[in-house]
Amino acid sequence: MTIIMHDLAGADPALRFSPYCWRARFALAHKGLPVETLPWRFNDKAAIAFSGQGRVPVIRDGETVVSDSWAIAEYLEEHVPAPALFGSATSRAHARFINAWADSVMLGGIARLIVSDIYHVIDAGDRDYFRQSREARFGMTLEAVQAGRESRVEDFRATTLLPLRLVLGKQPWLGGAAPSYADCIIAGTLMWPRCCSRFAVLADDDPIAAWFERMLDLYGGLGRAAVRP
Amino acid sequence: MTIIMHDLAGADPALRFSPYCWRARFALAHKGLPVETLPWRFNDKAAIAFSGQGRVPVIRDGETVVSDSWAIAEYLEEHVPAPALFGSATSRAHARFINAWADSVMLGGIARLIVSDIYHVIDAGDRDYFRQSREARFGMTLEAVQAGRESRVEDFRATTLLPLRLVLGKQPWLGGAAPSYADCIIAGTLMWPRCCSRFAVLADDDPIAAWFERMLDLYGGLGRAAVRP
Repeated sequence: MTIIMHDLAGADPALRFSPYCWRARFALAHKGLPVETLPWRFNDKAAIAFSGQGRVPVIRDGETVVSDSWAIAEYLEEHVPAPALFGSATSRAHARFINAWADSVMLGGIARLIVSDIYHVIDAGDRDYFRQSREARFGMTLEAVQAGRESRVEDFRATTLLPLRLVLGKQPWLGGAAPSYADCIIAGTLMWPRCCSRFAVLADDDPIAAWFERMLDLYGGLGRAAVRP
Repeated sequence: MTIIMHDLAGADPALRFSPYCWRARFALAHKGLPVETLPWRFNDKAAIAFSGQGRVPVIRDGETVVSDSWAIAEYLEEHVPAPALFGSATSRAHARFINAWADSVMLGGIARLIVSDIYHVIDAGDRDYFRQSREARFGMTLEAVQAGRESRVEDFRATTLLPLRLVLGKQPWLGGAAPSYADCIIAGTLMWPRCCSRFAVLADDDPIAAWFERMLDLYGGLGRAAVRP
């Protein structure tokens, strides 16, 4: 039975840009599982009320409902062990750190570069919610958050992303010789600016960009085929 | 045969504070391997010339010489599989990110809080080298680097260490249900300020501090027994 996934969409329902939803999309593709994605907007709380919470991704696999990208990865690993996303409990525990770093460091760094661009691609009905919630979080307008990004992006690349660059200098994938859920986490996070903005978060000559290009080609070119604004 | 390890020491040869050496000490203890540590100072290049490079830790296991804390962990895992430090290739690949983050983010953050304290505990013969190399790196005097730490430490705790706190809110060890090399990496890194300084890098009520206290008790209280300044 095809898995159904509620997936954040922009004004263009084909535009899918949530970093959490992309982690789940990559994880599903890693397992070779077909998925039907349903466009969802921030104000569609009723559409996912059955999940008992208000955020996407939410997947429905027959009678089973799972929300939260990390929980979805764990669910997929349990029900379809190969190809492995984690492969061992210790490996999963270590990936939690990568997930926590992506959530608490990388996402915030990217938001400061593209948050106003996001506003321009989301659905009209989501814009007031988005502006108010994000301006409250940052304590300034979306436009002010994003201002000066051409110079600030250098520090983001050199400093914020440095741990990724050090790892990818040692091994071809974050998972080592082959991609793992760690690759899904970081590539999913990078799909967010890719699908919201034309601003280049990565420099072309960055080893992280070379790895991301390889990720875009995986799973039949799933990432590369994604609609961009 | 007991493994020999060259271990950075202070003016007091019993004071051992290198974060890299502590990663190796914890890894050796995790494997239950006895080790004899030899005090080493920055200017003792001749004493480790046999290793083909100039940094500690260096271990000698019979005829085998291994330098670099990460390479030592890999060597130990290969030669003494249990108890596991990694347990799988994917787990090791994921731990590389934690190691890279500790090296590129955590160490620099800690240095800005204690670098002048380090100067005061190292051997007299190491002080000129230490001051010159670190002042060149930071572009200011050691005293200026460390100035204002009482207020700056709040941001270090809240922001820099946040990924660790998020993970330890989900699982008791960085390795999951049991300690892994990830725990050795981070605890080893925290032994550096513990053994160089009396400045509290962690707040007492931080879940990271609770985890570190448990790490200090592991392996027969190896970390807790370490000499402090």
